[in-house]
Amino acid sequence: MNTLKGQDILDGSQFSRDQLDLIMNVAEDFKRRLENSKGLDLLKGYVLAALFFEPSTRTRLSFETAIHRLGGSVIGFSSAESTSVAKGETLEDTIRTVDQYVDLIAMRHPAIGSAVRAAQIAEHPVLNGGDGAGQHPTQALLDLYTIRAERGKVDGTTIVLCGDLKNGRTVHSGVEIYKHYQCKLVFVAPEQLRMPSEVTEKLIAQGITVEETTDLPAALKKADVLYMTRIQKERFTDPEEYERLKDSYILTREMVETINPRLIVLHPLPRVNEITTDVDNLAGAAYFRQARNGVFTRMALLALVSGKIS
Amino acid sequence: MNTLKGQDILDGSQFSRDQLDLIMNVAEDFKRRLENSKGLDLLKGYVLAALFFEPSTRTRLSFETAIHRLGGSVIGFSSAESTSVAKGETLEDTIRTVDQYVDLIAMRHPAIGSAVRAAQIAEHPVLNGGDGAGQHPTQALLDLYTIRAERGKVDGTTIVLCGDLKNGRTVHSGVEIYKHYQCKLVFVAPEQLRMPSEVTEKLIAQGITVEETTDLPAALKKADVLYMTRIQKERFTDPEEYERLKDSYILTREMVETINPRLIVLHPLPRVNEITTDVDNLAGAAYFRQARNGVFTRMALLALVSGKIS
Amino acid sequence: MNTLKGQDILDGSQFSRDQLDLIMNVAEDFKRRLENSKGLDLLKGYVLAALFFEPSTRTRLSFETAIHRLGGSVIGFSSAESTSVAKGETLEDTIRTVDQYVDLIAMRHPAIGSAVRAAQIAEHPVLNGGDGAGQHPTQALLDLYTIRAERGKVDGTTIVLCGDLKNGRTVHSGVEIYKHYQCKLVFVAPEQLRMPSEVTEKLIAQGITVEETTDLPAALKKADVLYMTRIQKERFTDPEEYERLKDSYILTREMVETINPRLIVLHPLPRVNEITTDVDNLAGAAYFRQARNGVFTRMALLALVSGKIS
Repeated sequence: MNTLKGQDILDGSQFSRDQLDLIMNVAEDFKRRLENSKGLDLLKGYVLAALFFEPSTRTRLSFETAIHRLGGSVIGFSSAESTSVAKGETLEDTIRTVDQYVDLIAMRHPAIGSAVRAAQIAEHPVLNGGDGAGQHPTQALLDLYTIRAERGKVDGTTIVLCGDLKNGRTVHSGVEIYKHYQCKLVFVAPEQLRMPSEVTEKLIAQGITVEETTDLPAALKKADVLYMTRIQKERFTDPEEYERLKDSYILTREMVETINPRLIVLHPLPRVNEITTDVDNLAGAAYFRQARNGVFTRMALLALVSGKIS
Repeated sequence: MNTLKGQDILDGSQFSRDQLDLIMNVAEDFKRRLENSKGLDLLKGYVLAALFFEPSTRTRLSFETAIHRLGGSVIGFSSAESTSVAKGETLEDTIRTVDQYVDLIAMRHPAIGSAVRAAQIAEHPVLNGGDGAGQHPTQALLDLYTIRAERGKVDGTTIVLCGDLKNGRTVHSGVEIYKHYQCKLVFVAPEQLRMPSEVTEKLIAQGITVEETTDLPAALKKADVLYMTRIQKERFTDPEEYERLKDSYILTREMVETINPRLIVLHPLPRVNEITTDVDNLAGAAYFRQARNGVFTRMALLALVSGKIS
Repeated sequence: MNTLKGQDILDGSQFSRDQLDLIMNVAEDFKRRLENSKGLDLLKGYVLAALFFEPSTRTRLSFETAIHRLGGSVIGFSSAESTSVAKGETLEDTIRTVDQYVDLIAMRHPAIGSAVRAAQIAEHPVLNGGDGAGQHPTQALLDLYTIRAERGKVDGTTIVLCGDLKNGRTVHSGVEIYKHYQCKLVFVAPEQLRMPSEVTEKLIAQGITVEETTDLPAALKKADVLYMTRIQKERFTDPEEYERLKDSYILTREMVETINPRLIVLHPLPRVNEITTDVDNLAGAAYFRQARNGVFTRMALLALVSGKIS
């Protein structure tokens, strides 16, 4: 069964190829329908909980836009300080309470595994919007959608993933998805922020072509897609290490134009300085279109897990 | 007149028995209607202000869910810091302003009497979602609803109220309501957190059977319902006193099973450690169903004070 | 062309007299329509971003009320701390992202010129809800609406503007609008908080009658309207200077009754102590009606810039 009705969205590794294609097709269909209409009534009356225990701009706001465009509404919070967490409530009790109110739960939390814990408690579908340095599957799905939209296909794409691959939850979820499309993966990171070896080894054991390097220009020569990520200050315990590493890789317009002018550039955003702003207007700079695709992809997920589309 | 149209919901003592029964019946009706539908259009176009000057999870989110399920929408804030209170605005001016925008006002504020002050200024109905250690009438109404739903009736119920009875606004509102149902009340609290004597004396003068003790197990033997509450850290000026008192009463699964297996356990939540989590799956552990009942009860209040149901 | 379709609302000086009259008439029409109905469906499906990087009560909540009364919905934030600004994202990137999600953007930001920067990036209309000590055009429009509603006309009105005229963005936007109505302007401010001389000189060069004084009672004698403003603590770098100046002008009931009983008093709010509360119940105390007019005026702006009314 490929249906996603009633399912949680927790981890990039949970999807079959058929499920991925289904999500992509539903997202594409919503994109088309929104060209003729500001909003739909498909989830009229539905209430989504958006529970963000950590800062977010894109994930929270695009989930909220998605439920509104589907005709539903939203409750929740954008930081834990104004909630009963401040009075000592556990994550489990907060989730079990909110589960009594709503039809769907999207959440972000600093602890790895928090979304899995929530899903064990909640009767309604839980959509993981980032659990610390763990997973961020809805981001990975919108990344997949963007590669498909920019290239026309995903199969066989050579993807360079660059930046903080150790703590980057979007890439952890992403590689679990790209492997269904015979993508060639090139990991570019400073030594201290390499992709965890168990991830790399698992991919290789599954027959995926994986290359590791610290040389971004060399990697870009053969890339179809560069997936750039931010060195995440909030994941460092040692501020000096952050200072040493934060400027490890910076993509400039000159690099793109001289090394690989047809390069498609993705970034989950926010960026600090790892892509200079003169890249923004290149044809292949897809990161703001990527943000927009988050609405269509999350509309698809909300519609599918609520069983209104199958 | 039993109508609640245009009325404020400020205090547990404001209701007649007929009004209580009306609210319960309307809440029950909404519960049934939501079994066949995600939402109603009864308050379509209505705007609720949810003004939370203090942290809240359940009260704010269930008020917001309630107005959404009725087809309306919500504006407001979940902490005062992002508002003009930060610029020195008085409560009165904030309320008088928001009253210009909306149809209904739900609020929580740390000062006792703040909701009464707001109601004196606002032309639209004010629903008190907790005024410091004062009152919390909408919580008491959903507690009443839960006792009725769990037992089939409220009249004659023996209710043990345990924890911080001095500062606990939910129990202050609750006893004003239970007295309409000839409930027997047992107050269990450490000496420093006893129910204020004027409350107890007033109840006795009204012919209510009230008992006070520090012995929870003895009280549980004769209880139909245990209403457990949290020792509220935020109400203490002396942190050492909080440390001494915080573990005064802890309900465990073993206590329920050996003393009174048919015990119905309520808690306004959040809990810290006063009910161990192994109680959660007992048949009588009603506190998460109680949270859910908050949506139906608040829907009833919003519909009644706005005059759309009478 | 007087149409506002697709236009940004950035600055009090951007409007023609015909556009001002159009906005006033549409706002008046919405006021009338809301007397018979809680809400309209004119912007059903539309999503407004309310991006408030600085505290706000009136501007944010009345924008949100406005989009709800028009049948649309809202996403956004009420402080920057819970967003990716905390991770180092620029204003430009935040705007370009949110622009992918929504149909309309209302924003407040502490930096002068921030709304202009946002409008250069966003494809959707940007409505400036205050950019530091710069402009606050939607406030100036609701002030204009209020003068018209209170007096029946605006042309030829003598308006005394009092308080912090140096940093007061509402008066900076206001004078750009009043000049279309042959208003006589009297500026009353302490020396350190005088209206910037380039503003005054520009008005005089355009043939507007402008008078400057430090004597509020004298100015009130000939006033039709007093526009009182708060000395804004958050604009001072020197706390001692704030202390010296904060009580420069205080309007009391006695002043109104003895000097000019027919005075119409406006204030953008919040107030601290510059209007004593015994003024509030005078017939001419229009500042809470003024707050209410913010909903109608912002409904008009949202409907006009989205092109649903022209």
